[in-house]
Parts: sequence; structure tokens; C-alpha cells
Amino acid sequence: MAKFEPCGVVALLTDFGAQDPYVGTMKGVILSRRPAAVLVDLTHAVPAQDVRRAAWFLMHARVHFSAGTVFLCVVDPGVGSERALLCALDRGQAFLAPDNGLLAPALSPAAQVFELDARAASATFHGRDILAPAAGELLAGKAPERLGRPLARPPQRLELPRAEPRGSGELSAEVLFADHYGNLILSAGAGDLAGGAAHWVLELEGRSLPISRTYSDAAPGELLALVDSYAALEIAVRDGNAAERLGLRPGARVTLRRRA
Amino acid sequence: MAKFEPCGVVALLTDFGAQDPYVGTMKGVILSRRPAAVLVDLTHAVPAQDVRRAAWFLMHARVHFSAGTVFLCVVDPGVGSERALLCALDRGQAFLAPDNGLLAPALSPAAQVFELDARAASATFHGRDILAPAAGELLAGKAPERLGRPLARPPQRLELPRAEPRGSGELSAEVLFADHYGNLILSAGAGDLAGGAAHWVLELEGRSLPISRTYSDAAPGELLALVDSYAALEIAVRDGNAAERLGLRPGARVTLRRRA
Amino acid sequence: MAKFEPCGVVALLTDFGAQDPYVGTMKGVILSRRPAAVLVDLTHAVPAQDVRRAAWFLMHARVHFSAGTVFLCVVDPGVGSERALLCALDRGQAFLAPDNGLLAPALSPAAQVFELDARAASATFHGRDILAPAAGELLAGKAPERLGRPLARPPQRLELPRAEPRGSGELSAEVLFADHYGNLILSAGAGDLAGGAAHWVLELEGRSLPISRTYSDAAPGELLALVDSYAALEIAVRDGNAAERLGLRPGARVTLRRRA
Repeated sequence: MAKFEPCGVVALLTDFGAQDPYVGTMKGVILSRRPAAVLVDLTHAVPAQDVRRAAWFLMHARVHFSAGTVFLCVVDPGVGSERALLCALDRGQAFLAPDNGLLAPALSPAAQVFELDARAASATFHGRDILAPAAGELLAGKAPERLGRPLARPPQRLELPRAEPRGSGELSAEVLFADHYGNLILSAGAGDLAGGAAHWVLELEGRSLPISRTYSDAAPGELLALVDSYAALEIAVRDGNAAERLGLRPGARVTLRRRA
Repeated sequence: MAKFEPCGVVALLTDFGAQDPYVGTMKGVILSRRPAAVLVDLTHAVPAQDVRRAAWFLMHARVHFSAGTVFLCVVDPGVGSERALLCALDRGQAFLAPDNGLLAPALSPAAQVFELDARAASATFHGRDILAPAAGELLAGKAPERLGRPLARPPQRLELPRAEPRGSGELSAEVLFADHYGNLILSAGAGDLAGGAAHWVLELEGRSLPISRTYSDAAPGELLALVDSYAALEIAVRDGNAAERLGLRPGARVTLRRRA
Repeated sequence: MAKFEPCGVVALLTDFGAQDPYVGTMKGVILSRRPAAVLVDLTHAVPAQDVRRAAWFLMHARVHFSAGTVFLCVVDPGVGSERALLCALDRGQAFLAPDNGLLAPALSPAAQVFELDARAASATFHGRDILAPAAGELLAGKAPERLGRPLARPPQRLELPRAEPRGSGELSAEVLFADHYGNLILSAGAGDLAGGAAHWVLELEGRSLPISRTYSDAAPGELLALVDSYAALEIAVRDGNAAERLGLRPGARVTLRRRA
């Protein structure tokens, strides 16, 4: 038997936005099965249908939640099609999501993955009609096996962009997205900087920016590069907006170079 | 005595938006009376003063919450005027709102309706100063009779737009609004399509769209019509935004035609 | 020993916005220490780095929460610098925030203020790595003394704009901000109007507006001035948007005059 011991918390991650009652309705469904559920929003502002962004957020956020947390994740361009709906157990946490790669970067190779029974469902809102009830059942102590059957094949894969080596001592990284402050999050992480961040610079606008420790290492209005709270490389403007200042959009590439 | 057995959940629906602490302050008032309250946001992005939109959302969302839920709804262009503040009991749920029609589509003819005592109130924020305390009192077990008195007249009515028959086998429907994805929600529902959705088409841009089962029945970028998770007719673009593509705004009319 | 008796509620106020999982991650950290925590969002839409706006919101919102509430406030342009992180106890409530003035207007002179131990922290997200754990510890019953040491100097001050007397019977007030409805909140409060609001008018567009009691005192589309739910003077348009109509931005000044 797969073992899951719920702590009572359900963390929700969707591209539903805030203007409709879609998220609230899913919460009603969970609470109608488990009134003591503790519901937490990771974010519902994932760009519409952007499975990669959701996957990136989940991979980074899950480590700050305890064992026993249920993650309910719905970015689902394939709703109503033949794609499966998953319940994965990994490192004491449970994950509910469509099988479109959203869970892939967050799961370890040891994850146990089940396919939920979706026969009774509506055709357009599986988050409300299958995943939310499953979250309620998990909180109420139901075993994952009783929600479906072991997935007979590996779950859908998803490769997130990474830093790419370009000759010796050089890395090419991609701008993944701009956060709320306009900070540009890159596809390179602290672990990519051989020898430590102090040995690297970011090439930008003809300058070589050292990797700073924190935002206040720069003067107000100044550009800086740093390792951020995701442990990702980030381009920021102290008290300003790097995305607006630089005009760099997701997919743009920048170069990291090891100091001579 | 009117009977209400709270399950501990308060679902909030307002036009307060997210930028001010108005919603949070109402929650503080509820929690100061009932620290164990479970608070759920339906949405706070109802367009300012749009009572009809709130009424439509509430009517559809309430069915996904269990008996014992308190719905606290504040879209209140008449705050400070003589309009009453209501507590309605219906099918085991409680509803708190100004008497402006917001509750009307959600309530059955059997609803018991009370008028709250508003004497002690501020003149500009009855949601915080009357409705939120009433929610806290209901959760704490206070009988609705003790919050006010039976309403001496029927509550304010509100008619939501419906599909209108236009001769034999034709219906005219109104675009109610675009949701977060740009899907256009129509004033016609599955129940309006005599004989079932398979027998109808939606006339759009000179084409007759069949009523699809789900979004993935269309190719990416293609227009489709379907019965959505509200059981409403909806115009969508697979992986796209129908409102932008078609330029149809709330109030625009479209035609549904029964297949020959 | 400083005494704090938690009621289980944590109210969060930040400039993190809704698009990233930053707020959700802080909540995960709190819940991993105290799964029974009740988490309430005041707002996360404080303009980026606007410590004054956050201070104004906190000062007004705290009075609607009970004793035992923990306020976790993060608007932190100085993250990573030498600024301290505070835990303040005041009137039975606890406040966690960077020492940049955010707490100042909310605290009474009797507040006890501690400096949190920040040695183990990341350099870029003290909200998640120091303040959220501290909130969890407070809820779990840990004494504030055990989270840090008494602050050896007064906390950072912050003066919010006030109404300024301009000769006899005249006040100059500043537009602080526009709320979600476009209502313009002024730096003058009910207490500034000697003799009561009925004795004052607001000078605007060559007219003298009396201080109304509530929004519905004006006809739809009409300008009005009133004392709002913050007990602040406010300029509104009935069922409309005063900020758009008047083009007044934060920092603009208006005149209040005592009636002859």
C-alpha cells in the first residue's frame, strides 16, 4: 500500500486567475469533503496554459511545505482529452495534476504515480470535478490506491531550460520570466557556477556584472546580478524594474563568464 | 425558529478588488468573533458595482459548497441608503448581502429571509460593520432571528438575461461576460437546447459551429462552442482568447439554431 | 518576560503581488511550523517598495483584528542590508517586519520591540527565511525574547502626511492614494475637522463640497466628499471613479475650509 499521511494542508497552483469563482469553487468542493482543510494559494496567475511556468513554481515551492501537504495543480490545456489525471506520492507529499509534465520537475525518481479514475467527470473542469474531490479524499484518509490505479507507463516528461556551456568558462542562460518586481529569473542556478558565484560575471550591455549577494549591494537604480531566493541567477535593478529597463523578454539569452 | 447549522466555512464574494485591505479587514472582524472560521474567497474581482455579475457567480458557485456554509456577499452601490441588509436561509446554507437583488437568483422560493439590524453601523462600509459581524455570530451559533427580524416584504428581485426564442428552432443569447481565458459565457444554458446540445449549432462569422463536448475537440487556435462547467453555452478558442479574437463584448447577441 | 498569547491568526501584508509563489511559500513555512495557523491576507498589492502605504494600511487594519493576532509585514527595499528585523508586541498583538518604519504608525509608545536573530538567513528573502519562521514560533508559544533580543535603540520612525493648517479655518490635505474604486483618500481625518464634519467644505473645481455622510447622498455620477471607513476624508464619485474623473494623483493637494 502506498502510504500518505495528510497534515491537512492543500496548496493550490493554477492558471485560473482571480476574476472568476473557479478557484473558490474548487475550494468549496474540497471543504465539502473535509471542512477542516487548510487551503493555501501558491499562485493562480500562471500565464494561461503555461505548463512550464507552473512546473517551475511547483518545483521551487514544494520544499517549503511540510510532509503531508497535498499540492493541487491545474494548468490543463488538454482537459477533456485522453491525457490522464495523476496522483503522485513523493517524499511524504502528494501531488494532483493532469499528466502534461507539470509535476515532472518536482518529482524524484522514487515517486509513486497513480492514474485517477475520471469516468464520472464533466468534460471541461476536471480540477473541480476530479482533482478537488481527490484532494478531499486524501485529506480524509483515503489511500491513493483507492482513487485510481498505478500508472502503467512513466508520467509525461518536461525538461525545463538549463544553462548551456559554451566553450570553457562560459555559460549561456535563458530569461525564464520576470517576477512581480521586474526581476529577470534565469535558467542558470547557483549550482551551475563552478567554483562559486564569486568567480563569475554576467555580461550585460557591454559590462561585466559581478554576482552580488543581495539587492542592497547596488546603489538605487543600478543594475545587478545575484543568486536569488530560488537559488537561481537573477538580473535586478535596485529599487527598480529590470524587465522594463532592459526590455528582455522570456527566451532572451544572456552570457555568464568565469573570471580570468 | 429558523434553523442554521454552521459548518464553519464563510465564502466571500465582493467587488472590493485586491489592492486595498478591505477584504482582509472583513476577515479580521469575522475571526475576532470566531477564530476557527474557515474563510474562502469566491472572487473579489466582480466589476465595481456589478450586482448582476455577483448574482450570477453566487448562483453557480453555491452548489459546490456544503450545507452549513455562510456566503458573505458585498456589491453595494446603495451603502448608507435605506436598502436593507439581508440574512437568508435556504437549503441549509446562509446568505448575507445587501437587498439589491444579489441573492435573488441563488435563492429558492422556500428561503427564509431576515432583515439585519443596522442601527449601530458606519455609513460607508456595512460589509465590515454589519455583515461580517453577522457572519461571525452565525458561526458562533446565534440564531438568525436574533440578528434581525423577518423581512416584511419580498426581497429585491433580479432577472438575469436568458436565451430568447426567435421563431421555431432559434434562440437569441447574450454575451454575459468573458472569463479569465477570454471564453465568452452566454445567457443560454444546456437546458435551453431542446432535444440536447447535439441538435443545435451556434451561428458565428457566417459559420454554423456544432456544440462541442470539450476544448480539445477543436484544433489549437480554432473557434468552438460548448456547454461549459457552469452548464452555460460558451464560445472559446482552443488555447486562445475568444473575446479578443471576436471582439464581442457583454451585451452582444448571438444566435443558436436547431439543426434541420 | 514579554507576554504574547497567540489566537492562531497570522495576517499578512506585503508588496509581493499575486503572480509569483512568494506569499504562498511564506505560508508554507508558517504552516510547516504550525499546521493549525489561520492565515489572512490584508493585501499583497502594496506598490513595490512603498513602505508608507503599507504603514498606512497596517495602522488602519490592525484595529479590526483581535488580541493574539500576528501581523507579518514585508515591504523591504533594504533586504540583505544592515537594517534590523523586528518583533513588536503592542496591545496584545504581535508585529513582524523589517525596521524601516512600516510598523511605526501602528505602534503605541508602550510597544515592546525585539530585534530578531538573522544570522542563519538567506540574503534576499528574509520574509520567508526569518519572519515567517518567527510567526510560526510565536503561534507555537515561543516567547518573543527567545526569538531575539530587546532592540537597543528606538525603531525607525515614519511620519505619515497629515492635514496642515493654513491660517484660520483652513486645512491643506494631500491625496494619499486612490483605492480600487478610484476613491481618493486624503491625509485629513475626521478628527482634524474642528467642530465636526458638518462645519467644513472641500474646495474642488471651484465648488465647495459639503462633507456628506455616505456615497448615496450624491446622485449617480456626482462628486462628493465624505468621511470614509478609515475615518479619513475621501473624494468619491457616486457609482464612478474620482481618480479618473479628477486626474488627481498621490501627492496632489486639496483645501478644506471651515464654513463661515
